[in-house]
Amino acid sequence: MFTERLKQLTPYVPGEQPQDRQYIKLNTNENPYPPSPAVADYLKTVDVANLRRYPDPLFTELRGALAKRYGVESDQVFVGNGSDEVLSFMFYAFFDSQQGPLLFPEYTYSFYPVYCDFYAIDYQKVALQGDFSVDLDGFLRAGPSCGLIFPNPNAPTGIGLPLDRIEALMESYPRDRVVAVDEAYIDFGGESAAALIDRQPNLIVARTFSKSMSLAGLRLGFTLGDRQLIQALYTVKDSFNSYPVDTLAQQAGLRAVQDRVYYDRITAQVIATRDAFSADLNRLGWFQMPSSANFVFAGKNGVSGEEIYLTLKEQGILVRYFNVDGLKNYVRITIGTDEEMATLVAAMEKYL
Amino acid sequence: MFTERLKQLTPYVPGEQPQDRQYIKLNTNENPYPPSPAVADYLKTVDVANLRRYPDPLFTELRGALAKRYGVESDQVFVGNGSDEVLSFMFYAFFDSQQGPLLFPEYTYSFYPVYCDFYAIDYQKVALQGDFSVDLDGFLRAGPSCGLIFPNPNAPTGIGLPLDRIEALMESYPRDRVVAVDEAYIDFGGESAAALIDRQPNLIVARTFSKSMSLAGLRLGFTLGDRQLIQALYTVKDSFNSYPVDTLAQQAGLRAVQDRVYYDRITAQVIATRDAFSADLNRLGWFQMPSSANFVFAGKNGVSGEEIYLTLKEQGILVRYFNVDGLKNYVRITIGTDEEMATLVAAMEKYL
Repeated sequence: MFTERLKQLTPYVPGEQPQDRQYIKLNTNENPYPPSPAVADYLKTVDVANLRRYPDPLFTELRGALAKRYGVESDQVFVGNGSDEVLSFMFYAFFDSQQGPLLFPEYTYSFYPVYCDFYAIDYQKVALQGDFSVDLDGFLRAGPSCGLIFPNPNAPTGIGLPLDRIEALMESYPRDRVVAVDEAYIDFGGESAAALIDRQPNLIVARTFSKSMSLAGLRLGFTLGDRQLIQALYTVKDSFNSYPVDTLAQQAGLRAVQDRVYYDRITAQVIATRDAFSADLNRLGWFQMPSSANFVFAGKNGVSGEEIYLTLKEQGILVRYFNVDGLKNYVRITIGTDEEMATLVAAMEKYL
Repeated sequence: MFTERLKQLTPYVPGEQPQDRQYIKLNTNENPYPPSPAVADYLKTVDVANLRRYPDPLFTELRGALAKRYGVESDQVFVGNGSDEVLSFMFYAFFDSQQGPLLFPEYTYSFYPVYCDFYAIDYQKVALQGDFSVDLDGFLRAGPSCGLIFPNPNAPTGIGLPLDRIEALMESYPRDRVVAVDEAYIDFGGESAAALIDRQPNLIVARTFSKSMSLAGLRLGFTLGDRQLIQALYTVKDSFNSYPVDTLAQQAGLRAVQDRVYYDRITAQVIATRDAFSADLNRLGWFQMPSSANFVFAGKNGVSGEEIYLTLKEQGILVRYFNVDGLKNYVRITIGTDEEMATLVAAMEKYL
C-alpha cells in the first residue's frame, strides 16, 4: 500500500504550536511585532469575488517588488509557499549525489537531511569550527560534492558569516555545482549574499517572510539567483503545483515588501532587545553563542537544555531544545518583546 | 549544475491566466460566482497581528469542519495547498512502480504523467470506452499495477461514473494497492466515493475548493480516506513543508465549508446554466459529451479545437483546447454566468 520511499522518511518535527493555553512563545523564531499595517489595510479592502480565480502563477507583482527591493531583475526571483517549499524545490533541482554527497554543517537547520531523504540524495555533515561557526574551508576539504547548503546566520547557533568569506568560498568551489545560502535570519545582523548573484552564476539565496517580515502565517518564501537557476525552480513548480502561492499571500506580501520603513523599525527593535537580553544572560552567568539572528542559543552549567525547557514551560514560557549530541546543554530562545524577555529573565533568576 | 531528475521533467502547462485584457474566461473551470459572503466577513475582521505566528500545522478547525460535512472522522481528512499538492503527495506516498505501472485513463487530467515523471513512477494509460467513458474493467485487464487514479467526473470529457461501478472495481482490485478517485468536479453531478471509505481501506478521494467552492485563489485541497492513508500524507507533508496551508486559507476555508446553503444554491445555478448551454449546443448542431461537471467538452464538424479557440479568443472569450491526438476536434468550455454563456452562444452562431 505504501511506497519504499515513504518508508524511508523521518519527518521534520516543527516547534510546538499550542492551540489552547496562552504561552509566552519563544520557540519558533516568530516576530513579536505584527506585520506592516499595509497588510491589514489590504485585507480590509480585498475584493473577495476575485478569489474564484486561480492566482497569478508567476506572482508577477510580488516578484517585481522583491526585485526592486533587492536590486535585481524579476527573472532572478522565484517565490514559493514558505521557504520550506522553496528549499525543497532547490534540493530537487540542484543536488544529485551521483556527483558526490551534498554538504551541510553538522549542526544546522534539521530539515536539510529530511529533504535529502525525501529525494534520495546522499549527504555529508561537515563539523563546525571550535567556536561553533560554519567551517567554509571544511566544505572544500571534504572531497567531491554535488553542492553546498548552509544558513547564514546558522541555526540554531545564530552565528553569522561575513560576506567576503562566502565570496572566497565561491571562488574555490566548482562553478558547475550550486551553493545555496539560506538567509532566513539575515535581516537581524548579517550581510546578504544577494549582492553576489550577478557575478556568481552558481549561487542561490533563500529568504523568507516568516521572520523579519512577521508573516509566518502567510507562508511566503523566495529565492534570488542566476536566471538559469531561477528558471529551473519554475520547472519544478510546474511539475508539482502550478499555483503554490495564493492570491491573498501574493497581495499581502506585496504590501509588506513595499513598507520598508516599518520593517526597518521593528527589526532594529528586535536587535536592541536581543542585545539587552544577551547582556542579561551574561549577568546571570549563562553561556551563549554570539547571535546575528532573532534568537539566542544559550545554556547554563549544570542544567540540561531539556531541564531548562521543562522548567520554563511550567512558568508559561516556551523555548526550544534539541535532543542532539553536542547541543544538549543549550536552548534556543526567540527574541520577543522587552516585556516578554523581562518575564523570561525573572523566571530564569527565580527557577534556574 | 542541474540534476538528472530535473532534466527529465516536462512541466504541466496551466490554462492561460491573462493579467491584462478582460476576457470572458471560460478556460480554467473557475466558478462564475463569488465565494460565500462568510469568507468576505472573515477577511474584514481578521486579526492580522496573528499572521506573525506559523499556521496550525494540523489545520485542526478546517479538518474538523470537513469531517463533519462529509460524515467522517477528523483523522480521515488531510488538507493541502490546492488539490495539486495533495495529489503530488499521494503519488509520492502510494505509487511505486516496482509493483507494476500506475494506471490512469488515456484522456484525463494531464498533470498525472507530470507527477509520474517528477517521482520516477512508470505509468500506463488505459483506453477510454467507445462512448469516451473511463474503462474500469480495462484497469483490471491491464495486468499487475501499483495503483489506479482517475477523475470522477473525468476531465476533459466531463463524463461521470456511477458509484456502484467504482465499488465493484474496488471489490476486484488488490486490497494492498491504492485506488485514488479525483473528485474535483463531483459536486456538479456525481456521487462521491467518500461514502465508501469506511469499508474500502485502500480508497482515497481527492477534493478541491477551487471549483464548486469558488476559492481557486486560496489554494485549498483535501483528501478523504482510511486513517493509515491519511497518516502517510502527514508524513509526506512533514518531509516537504510542515505548514503547507496558510492561516488565512485555513480560516476562510472553514467559513466556506460551514455555509452549505450558499454553495448548494450556486452549484444548482451552474448546473442549470450547463444544461441550458448543452441544449443550445444541440440546437447549433455541435457535438458534445454528456457532462456531470462545470464544463462541457464539445466541437463542431469541420472546425478544429484550435480554430474554435482562436475564433472565440478574437471575440474576447477564452476556452481551452488540447493539442492531443483524439481530442483535437474539441474545446473544453467552462460554464459561466447565463449572460456569459449567452455572449458565447451569440459568438458561436455568428463566427463558427
